[in-house]
Amino acid sequence: MPKVKAQITISLDGYMAGPNQSAENPLGEGGEALHEWAFKQAAFSEMHGRGNEGERGLSDDVLRTALENLGAVVMGRNMFGPIRGEWPDEEWKGWWGDDPPFHCPVYVLTHHPRDAFELEGGNSFHFVTEGIEVAIAAAKEEAAERDVAVGGASTLQQTIAAGLLDEIVVTQVPILLGSGERLFDHLAADAAEVELTDVVRGAEALHLTYRLG
Amino acid sequence: MPKVKAQITISLDGYMAGPNQSAENPLGEGGEALHEWAFKQAAFSEMHGRGNEGERGLSDDVLRTALENLGAVVMGRNMFGPIRGEWPDEEWKGWWGDDPPFHCPVYVLTHHPRDAFELEGGNSFHFVTEGIEVAIAAAKEEAAERDVAVGGASTLQQTIAAGLLDEIVVTQVPILLGSGERLFDHLAADAAEVELTDVVRGAEALHLTYRLG
Repeated sequence: MPKVKAQITISLDGYMAGPNQSAENPLGEGGEALHEWAFKQAAFSEMHGRGNEGERGLSDDVLRTALENLGAVVMGRNMFGPIRGEWPDEEWKGWWGDDPPFHCPVYVLTHHPRDAFELEGGNSFHFVTEGIEVAIAAAKEEAAERDVAVGGASTLQQTIAAGLLDEIVVTQVPILLGSGERLFDHLAADAAEVELTDVVRGAEALHLTYRLG
Repeated sequence: MPKVKAQITISLDGYMAGPNQSAENPLGEGGEALHEWAFKQAAFSEMHGRGNEGERGLSDDVLRTALENLGAVVMGRNMFGPIRGEWPDEEWKGWWGDDPPFHCPVYVLTHHPRDAFELEGGNSFHFVTEGIEVAIAAAKEEAAERDVAVGGASTLQQTIAAGLLDEIVVTQVPILLGSGERLFDHLAADAAEVELTDVVRGAEALHLTYRLG
Protein backbone atom coordinates (compact mmCIF):
# COMPACT_ATOMS: atom_id res chain seq x y z
CA MET A 1 0.00 0.00 0.00
CA PRO A 2 1.72 3.22 -1.10
CA LYS A 3 2.05 5.96 1.51
CA VAL A 4 2.46 9.70 1.78
CA LYS A 5 5.48 9.84 4.07
CA ALA A 6 8.17 12.08 5.49
CA GLN A 7 11.45 11.72 7.30
CA ILE A 8 12.57 14.85 9.05
CA THR A 9 15.32 15.67 11.52
CA ILE A 10 14.67 17.98 14.45
CA SER A 11 16.56 19.25 17.47
CA LEU A 12 15.58 18.45 21.04
CA ASP A 13 13.73 21.75 21.06
CA GLY A 14 11.81 20.83 17.93
CA TYR A 15 13.52 22.87 15.22
CA MET A 16 14.07 21.46 11.73
CA ALA A 17 16.13 24.49 10.67
CA GLY A 18 18.06 27.15 12.53
CA PRO A 19 17.33 30.89 12.40
CA ASN A 20 18.20 33.17 9.46
CA GLN A 21 17.93 30.75 6.56
CA SER A 22 19.57 32.15 3.42
CA ALA A 23 21.03 31.11 0.06
CA GLU A 24 24.42 30.71 1.75
CA ASN A 25 22.95 28.96 4.77
CA PRO A 26 19.86 27.06 3.62
CA LEU A 27 19.50 25.13 6.88
CA GLY A 28 19.80 28.27 9.02
CA GLU A 29 22.37 28.98 11.72
CA GLY A 30 23.32 25.75 13.45
CA GLY A 31 21.10 23.75 11.12
CA GLU A 32 23.96 21.78 9.56
CA ALA A 33 24.45 20.05 12.91
CA LEU A 34 21.00 18.52 12.55
CA HIS A 35 22.08 16.55 9.51
CA GLU A 36 25.56 15.37 10.47
CA TRP A 37 24.16 11.94 11.34
CA ALA A 38 22.67 11.63 7.84
CA PHE A 39 25.75 12.77 5.91
CA LYS A 40 27.64 9.81 7.39
CA GLN A 41 25.27 7.12 6.20
CA ALA A 42 25.89 4.83 3.23
CA ALA A 43 22.36 5.50 1.97
CA PHE A 44 23.17 9.21 1.77
CA SER A 45 26.36 8.57 -0.22
CA GLU A 46 24.53 6.29 -2.62
CA MET A 47 21.67 8.79 -3.05
CA HIS A 48 24.21 11.44 -4.00
CA GLY A 49 26.10 9.14 -6.38
CA ARG A 50 29.17 8.83 -4.20
CA GLY A 51 29.25 5.06 -4.33
CA ASN A 52 29.95 2.67 -1.55
CA GLU A 53 31.22 4.80 1.35
CA GLY A 54 29.47 5.53 4.65
CA GLU A 55 28.13 3.83 7.77
CA ARG A 56 25.76 0.87 7.64
CA GLY A 57 24.02 0.72 11.00
CA LEU A 58 20.55 1.36 12.35
CA SER A 59 20.45 4.98 11.17
CA ASP A 60 21.46 3.90 7.67
CA ASP A 61 18.52 1.50 7.61
CA VAL A 62 16.14 4.29 8.63
CA LEU A 63 17.44 6.67 5.97
CA ARG A 64 17.38 3.92 3.35
CA THR A 65 13.78 3.07 4.15
CA ALA A 66 12.79 6.75 3.93
CA LEU A 67 14.40 7.06 0.49
CA GLU A 68 13.26 3.77 -1.00
CA ASN A 69 10.22 3.17 -3.17
CA LEU A 70 9.80 6.88 -3.95
CA GLY A 71 7.52 7.70 -6.85
CA ALA A 72 7.19 11.46 -6.32
CA VAL A 73 8.20 14.25 -3.95
CA VAL A 74 6.20 17.25 -2.74
CA MET A 75 8.12 20.19 -1.28
CA GLY A 76 7.65 23.84 -0.45
CA ARG A 77 9.26 26.67 -2.27
CA ASN A 78 11.71 27.31 0.61
CA MET A 79 13.07 23.81 0.20
CA PHE A 80 13.37 24.32 -3.57
CA GLY A 81 15.32 27.56 -3.30
CA PRO A 82 15.90 30.95 -1.70
CA ILE A 83 13.90 33.02 -4.24
CA ARG A 84 10.68 34.58 -2.94
CA GLY A 85 7.87 36.27 -4.87
CA GLU A 86 7.68 36.20 -8.70
CA TRP A 87 10.30 34.11 -10.51
CA PRO A 88 12.75 36.63 -12.05
CA ASP A 89 13.70 34.04 -14.70
CA GLU A 90 14.00 30.27 -15.02
CA GLU A 91 17.63 30.03 -14.01
CA TRP A 92 17.23 28.66 -10.49
CA LYS A 93 16.86 24.90 -10.78
CA GLY A 94 17.10 23.90 -7.11
CA TRP A 95 19.95 23.35 -4.66
CA TRP A 96 21.00 20.00 -6.06
CA GLY A 97 22.88 20.56 -9.35
CA ASP A 98 22.29 18.78 -12.67
CA ASP A 99 21.41 15.42 -11.13
CA PRO A 100 19.32 15.89 -7.98
CA PRO A 101 19.03 12.99 -5.56
CA PHE A 102 15.28 12.43 -5.99
CA HIS A 103 15.22 10.54 -9.32
CA CYS A 104 11.49 11.10 -9.66
CA PRO A 105 9.11 13.99 -10.32
CA VAL A 106 9.14 16.75 -7.70
CA TYR A 107 6.09 18.94 -7.09
CA VAL A 108 6.93 22.39 -5.73
CA LEU A 109 4.18 24.35 -3.93
CA THR A 110 4.28 28.03 -4.94
CA HIS A 111 1.97 30.98 -5.45
CA HIS A 112 3.80 31.89 -8.67
CA PRO A 113 3.35 29.83 -11.87
CA ARG A 114 6.38 28.47 -13.64
CA ASP A 115 6.89 25.91 -16.41
CA ALA A 116 8.03 22.43 -15.49
CA PHE A 117 11.56 21.35 -16.39
CA GLU A 118 13.61 18.18 -16.42
CA LEU A 119 17.10 17.47 -15.13
CA GLU A 120 19.24 14.36 -15.33
CA GLY A 121 18.60 11.08 -13.53
CA GLY A 122 14.83 11.00 -13.89
CA ASN A 123 14.37 14.26 -12.00
CA SER A 124 11.68 16.71 -13.08
CA PHE A 125 10.24 19.74 -11.31
CA HIS A 126 6.61 20.78 -11.53
CA PHE A 127 5.14 23.91 -9.97
CA VAL A 128 1.76 23.70 -8.30
CA THR A 129 -0.17 26.88 -7.50
CA GLU A 130 -3.47 25.27 -6.46
CA GLY A 131 -2.48 24.22 -2.94
CA ILE A 132 -1.47 21.14 -1.00
CA GLU A 133 -4.42 18.90 -1.94
CA VAL A 134 -3.72 19.34 -5.65
CA ALA A 135 0.01 18.80 -5.18
CA ILE A 136 -0.44 15.61 -3.16
CA ALA A 137 -3.06 14.28 -5.58
CA ALA A 138 -0.76 14.89 -8.57
CA ALA A 139 2.15 13.26 -6.74
CA LYS A 140 0.08 10.21 -5.75
CA GLU A 141 -1.16 9.74 -9.29
CA GLU A 142 2.40 10.00 -10.58
CA ALA A 143 3.76 7.68 -7.90
CA ALA A 144 1.07 5.07 -8.52
CA GLU A 145 2.20 2.02 -6.50
CA ARG A 146 5.16 3.83 -4.96
CA ASP A 147 5.35 6.31 -2.07
CA VAL A 148 5.14 10.09 -2.03
CA ALA A 149 7.69 11.91 0.15
CA VAL A 150 6.88 15.32 1.60
CA GLY A 151 9.53 17.86 2.66
CA GLY A 152 9.73 21.30 4.21
CA ALA A 153 8.19 22.60 7.44
CA SER A 154 5.27 24.56 6.04
CA THR A 155 4.46 21.90 3.44
CA LEU A 156 4.49 19.18 6.09
CA GLN A 157 2.25 21.24 8.35
CA GLN A 158 -0.18 21.78 5.49
CA THR A 159 -0.11 18.07 4.64
CA ILE A 160 -0.82 17.10 8.25
CA ALA A 161 -3.58 19.72 8.57
CA ALA A 162 -5.21 18.40 5.39
CA GLY A 163 -5.15 14.86 6.82
CA LEU A 164 -2.95 13.67 3.95
CA LEU A 165 0.22 12.49 5.72
CA ASP A 166 0.22 8.75 6.47
CA GLU A 167 3.56 8.38 8.25
CA ILE A 168 6.38 10.51 9.55
CA VAL A 169 9.78 9.46 10.85
CA VAL A 170 10.91 12.12 13.30
CA THR A 171 14.65 11.87 13.75
CA GLN A 172 15.73 13.68 16.87
CA VAL A 173 19.29 14.78 17.55
CA PRO A 174 20.25 15.89 21.07
CA ILE A 175 21.10 19.52 20.41
CA LEU A 176 19.37 22.79 21.27
CA LEU A 177 19.01 25.24 18.38
CA GLY A 178 17.17 27.86 20.43
CA SER A 179 15.26 29.33 17.51
CA GLY A 180 14.45 28.73 13.85
CA GLU A 181 11.67 26.82 12.15
CA ARG A 182 9.78 24.22 14.16
CA LEU A 183 8.42 21.06 12.58
CA PHE A 184 5.28 20.83 14.72
CA ASP A 185 3.87 24.34 14.63
CA HIS A 186 0.79 26.12 13.30
CA LEU A 187 -1.23 22.94 13.87
CA ALA A 188 -4.65 22.62 15.47
CA ALA A 189 -5.04 20.47 18.59
CA ASP A 190 -7.05 17.95 16.61
CA ALA A 191 -4.89 18.09 13.47
CA ALA A 192 -4.24 14.35 13.55
CA GLU A 193 -4.50 11.17 15.57
CA VAL A 194 -0.95 10.01 16.13
CA GLU A 195 0.42 6.57 16.98
CA LEU A 196 4.04 5.77 17.75
CA THR A 197 4.84 2.66 15.71
CA ASP A 198 8.63 2.32 15.87
CA VAL A 199 11.60 3.49 17.95
CA VAL A 200 15.14 3.10 16.62
CA ARG A 201 18.09 4.39 18.61
CA GLY A 202 20.95 5.09 16.22
CA ALA A 203 24.47 6.04 17.25
CA GLU A 204 23.85 9.79 16.95
CA ALA A 205 20.13 10.12 16.37
CA LEU A 206 16.85 8.74 17.65
CA HIS A 207 14.31 7.77 14.99
CA LEU A 208 10.64 7.80 15.97
CA THR A 209 8.07 6.59 13.47
CA TYR A 210 4.48 7.80 13.79
CA ARG A 211 1.40 6.73 11.91
CA LEU A 212 -1.06 9.58 11.40
CA GLY A 213 -4.80 9.19 10.98
CA MET B 1 26.06 11.62 43.58
CA PRO B 2 22.92 13.73 44.09
CA LYS B 3 21.42 15.39 41.02
CA VAL B 4 19.22 18.27 40.02
CA LYS B 5 16.66 16.45 37.93
CA ALA B 6 13.30 16.74 36.24
CA GLN B 7 10.71 14.48 34.72
CA ILE B 8 8.28 16.23 32.45
CA THR B 9 5.62 15.09 30.00
CA ILE B 10 5.21 16.78 26.64
CA SER B 11 3.10 16.33 23.54
CA LEU B 12 4.55 15.41 20.14
CA ASP B 13 4.52 19.12 19.35
CA GLY B 14 6.48 19.91 22.51
CA TYR B 15 3.85 21.34 24.85
CA MET B 16 3.87 20.57 28.57
CA ALA B 17 0.54 22.33 29.12
CA GLY B 18 -2.34 23.25 26.87
CA PRO B 19 -3.56 26.81 26.20
CA ASN B 20 -5.60 28.90 28.67
CA GLN B 21 -4.33 27.56 31.98
CA SER B 22 -6.61 28.56 34.87
CA ALA B 23 -7.54 27.63 38.41
CA GLU B 24 -10.21 25.31 37.02
CA ASN B 25 -7.90 23.92 34.36
CA PRO B 26 -4.34 24.08 35.71
CA LEU B 27 -2.91 21.97 32.87
CA GLY B 28 -4.60 24.05 30.17
CA GLU B 29 -7.04 22.87 27.51
CA GLY B 30 -6.20 19.32 26.54
CA GLY B 31 -3.40 19.17 29.08
CA GLU B 32 -4.99 16.40 31.15
CA ALA B 33 -4.38 14.02 28.26
CA LEU B 34 -0.64 14.50 28.73
CA HIS B 35 -0.78 12.91 32.15
CA GLU B 36 -3.17 10.01 31.64
CA TRP B 37 -0.22 7.63 31.38
CA ALA B 38 1.04 8.79 34.80
CA PHE B 39 -2.30 8.63 36.62
CA LYS B 40 -2.41 4.88 35.86
CA GLN B 41 0.92 4.00 37.44
CA ALA B 42 1.34 2.35 40.84
CA ALA B 43 4.02 4.91 41.73
CA PHE B 44 1.46 7.68 41.24
CA SER B 45 -1.07 5.95 43.48
CA GLU B 46 1.51 5.41 46.18
CA MET B 47 2.73 9.01 45.96
CA HIS B 48 -0.84 10.21 46.51
CA GLY B 49 -1.46 7.80 49.40
CA ARG B 50 -3.88 5.59 47.48
CA GLY B 51 -2.08 2.40 48.34
CA ASN B 52 -1.40 -0.53 46.14
CA GLU B 53 -3.37 0.08 42.95
CA GLY B 54 -2.04 0.90 39.47
CA GLU B 55 0.13 -0.51 36.71
CA ARG B 56 3.65 -1.80 37.29
CA GLY B 57 5.39 -1.75 33.95
CA LEU B 58 8.18 0.22 32.31
CA SER B 59 6.42 3.56 32.74
CA ASP B 60 5.89 2.85 36.43
CA ASP B 61 9.63 2.27 36.81
CA VAL B 62 10.36 5.60 35.13
CA LEU B 63 7.93 7.50 37.33
CA ARG B 64 9.19 5.71 40.45
CA THR B 65 12.78 6.62 39.64
CA ALA B 66 11.82 10.26 39.08
CA LEU B 67 10.09 10.40 42.47
CA GLU B 68 12.62 8.49 44.52
CA ASN B 69 15.44 9.90 46.59
CA LEU B 70 13.94 13.41 46.60
CA GLY B 71 15.36 15.82 49.14
CA ALA B 72 13.83 19.05 47.86
CA VAL B 73 11.69 20.45 45.04
CA VAL B 74 12.02 23.74 43.14
CA MET B 75 9.01 24.98 41.23
CA GLY B 76 7.64 28.14 39.66
CA ARG B 77 4.76 30.11 40.94
CA ASN B 78 2.47 28.88 38.13
CA MET B 79 3.00 25.34 39.31
CA PHE B 80 2.27 26.35 42.90
CA GLY B 81 -0.99 28.09 42.08
CA PRO B 82 -3.09 30.35 39.87
CA ILE B 83 -2.49 33.59 41.83
CA ARG B 84 -0.41 36.25 40.05
CA GLY B 85 1.12 39.43 41.48
CA GLU B 86 1.07 40.24 45.21
CA TRP B 87 -0.25 37.52 47.55
CA PRO B 88 -3.71 38.76 48.67
CA ASP B 89 -3.40 36.63 51.84
CA GLU B 90 -1.82 33.35 52.92
CA GLU B 91 -4.82 31.17 52.17
CA TRP B 92 -3.59 29.50 48.98
CA LYS B 93 -1.44 26.57 50.00
CA GLY B 94 -0.94 24.88 46.63
CA TRP B 95 -3.03 22.52 44.51
CA TRP B 96 -2.35 19.43 46.59
CA GLY B 97 -4.44 19.63 49.79
CA ASP B 98 -3.25 19.05 53.38
CA ASP B 99 -0.73 16.33 52.51
CA PRO B 100 1.03 17.18 49.23
CA PRO B 101 2.84 14.36 47.43
CA PHE B 102 6.35 15.81 47.76
CA HIS B 103 7.14 14.90 51.39
CA CYS B 104 10.09 17.30 51.42
CA PRO B 105 10.70 21.06 51.36
CA VAL B 106 9.45 22.85 48.24
CA TYR B 107 11.06 26.09 47.07
CA VAL B 108 8.70 28.32 45.07
CA LEU B 109 10.21 30.98 42.80
CA THR B 110 8.28 34.24 43.03
CA HIS B 111 8.79 37.99 42.83
CA HIS B 112 6.58 38.48 45.87
CA PRO B 113 7.81 37.60 49.38
CA ARG B 114 5.75 35.32 51.55
CA ASP B 115 6.39 33.44 54.81
CA ALA B 116 7.19 29.77 54.67
CA PHE B 117 4.60 27.28 55.95
CA GLU B 118 4.39 23.60 56.72
CA LEU B 119 1.79 21.02 55.79
CA GLU B 120 1.45 17.35 56.72
CA GLY B 121 3.71 14.54 55.59
CA GLY B 122 7.01 16.41 55.77
CA ASN B 123 5.91 19.02 53.23
CA SER B 124 6.97 22.63 53.66
CA PHE B 125 6.83 25.55 51.25
CA HIS B 126 9.47 28.27 51.05
CA PHE B 127 9.27 31.34 48.83
CA VAL B 128 12.40 32.50 47.06
CA THR B 129 12.58 35.97 45.52
CA GLU B 130 16.29 36.02 44.68
CA GLY B 131 16.12 33.94 41.47
CA ILE B 132 16.88 30.46 40.27
CA GLU B 133 20.49 30.20 41.47
CA VAL B 134 19.48 30.96 45.05
CA ALA B 135 16.51 28.58 44.90
CA ILE B 136 18.58 25.69 43.52
CA ALA B 137 21.37 26.34 46.02
CA ALA B 138 18.93 26.31 48.94
CA ALA B 139 17.29 23.14 47.64
CA LYS B 140 20.65 21.37 47.17
CA GLU B 141 21.76 22.30 50.64
CA GLU B 142 18.49 21.02 52.08
CA ALA B 143 18.58 17.85 49.98
CA ALA B 144 22.19 17.07 50.94
CA GLU B 145 22.78 13.54 49.64
CA ARG B 146 19.41 13.33 47.95
CA ASP B 147 18.19 14.76 44.62
CA VAL B 148 16.51 18.05 43.81
CA ALA B 149 13.52 17.89 41.46
CA VAL B 150 12.61 20.90 39.33
CA GLY B 151 9.12 21.54 37.92
CA GLY B 152 7.33 24.04 35.72
CA ALA B 153 8.21 25.26 32.22
CA SER B 154 9.71 28.63 33.05
CA THR B 155 11.59 27.30 36.08
CA LEU B 156 13.04 24.46 34.03
CA GLN B 157 14.11 26.86 31.30
CA GLN B 158 15.80 29.08 33.86
CA THR B 159 17.50 26.07 35.43
CA ILE B 160 18.80 24.87 32.05
CA ALA B 161 19.92 28.39 31.07
CA ALA B 162 21.83 28.71 34.34
CA GLY B 163 23.57 25.39 33.67
CA LEU B 164 22.08 23.88 36.83
CA LEU B 165 20.00 20.98 35.51
CA ASP B 166 21.88 17.66 35.51
CA GLU B 167 19.28 15.35 34.03
CA ILE B 168 15.83 15.49 32.47
CA VAL B 169 13.47 12.68 31.60
CA VAL B 170 11.31 13.89 28.73
CA THR B 171 8.20 11.76 28.53
CA GLN B 172 6.54 12.14 25.18
CA VAL B 173 2.94 11.17 24.49
CA PRO B 174 1.74 10.94 20.88
CA ILE B 175 -0.81 13.72 20.85
CA LEU B 176 -0.86 17.18 19.26
CA LEU B 177 -1.92 20.00 21.58
CA GLY B 178 -1.48 22.71 18.94
CA SER B 179 -0.72 25.49 21.43
CA GLY B 180 0.09 26.11 25.07
CA GLU B 181 3.35 26.20 26.97
CA ARG B 182 6.39 24.53 25.41
CA LEU B 183 9.03 22.83 27.52
CA PHE B 184 11.99 23.76 25.31
CA ASP B 185 11.48 27.45 24.62
CA HIS B 186 13.22 30.74 25.40
CA LEU B 187 16.57 28.92 25.38
CA ALA B 188 19.78 30.00 23.68
CA ALA B 189 21.34 27.75 21.04
CA ASP B 190 24.23 27.02 23.37
CA ALA B 191 22.13 26.68 26.53
CA ALA B 192 23.40 23.18 27.23
CA GLU B 193 25.29 20.21 25.86
CA VAL B 194 22.80 17.37 25.75
CA GLU B 195 23.33 13.63 25.67
CA LEU B 196 20.61 11.01 25.27
CA THR B 197 21.35 8.39 27.92
CA ASP B 198 18.24 6.20 28.04
CA VAL B 199 15.20 5.32 25.93
CA VAL B 200 12.24 3.51 27.50
CA ARG B 201 9.15 2.75 25.46
CA GLY B 202 6.20 2.40 27.81
CA ALA B 203 2.73 1.28 26.80
CA GLU B 204 1.41 4.81 26.31
CA ALA B 205 4.44 7.05 26.61
CA LEU B 206 8.04 7.23 25.46
CA HIS B 207 10.58 8.18 28.12
CA LEU B 208 13.81 9.83 26.95
CA THR B 209 16.51 10.57 29.51
CA TYR B 210 19.03 13.29 28.76
CA ARG B 211 22.15 14.29 30.67
CA LEU B 212 22.87 18.00 30.47
CA GLY B 213 26.27 19.57 30.73
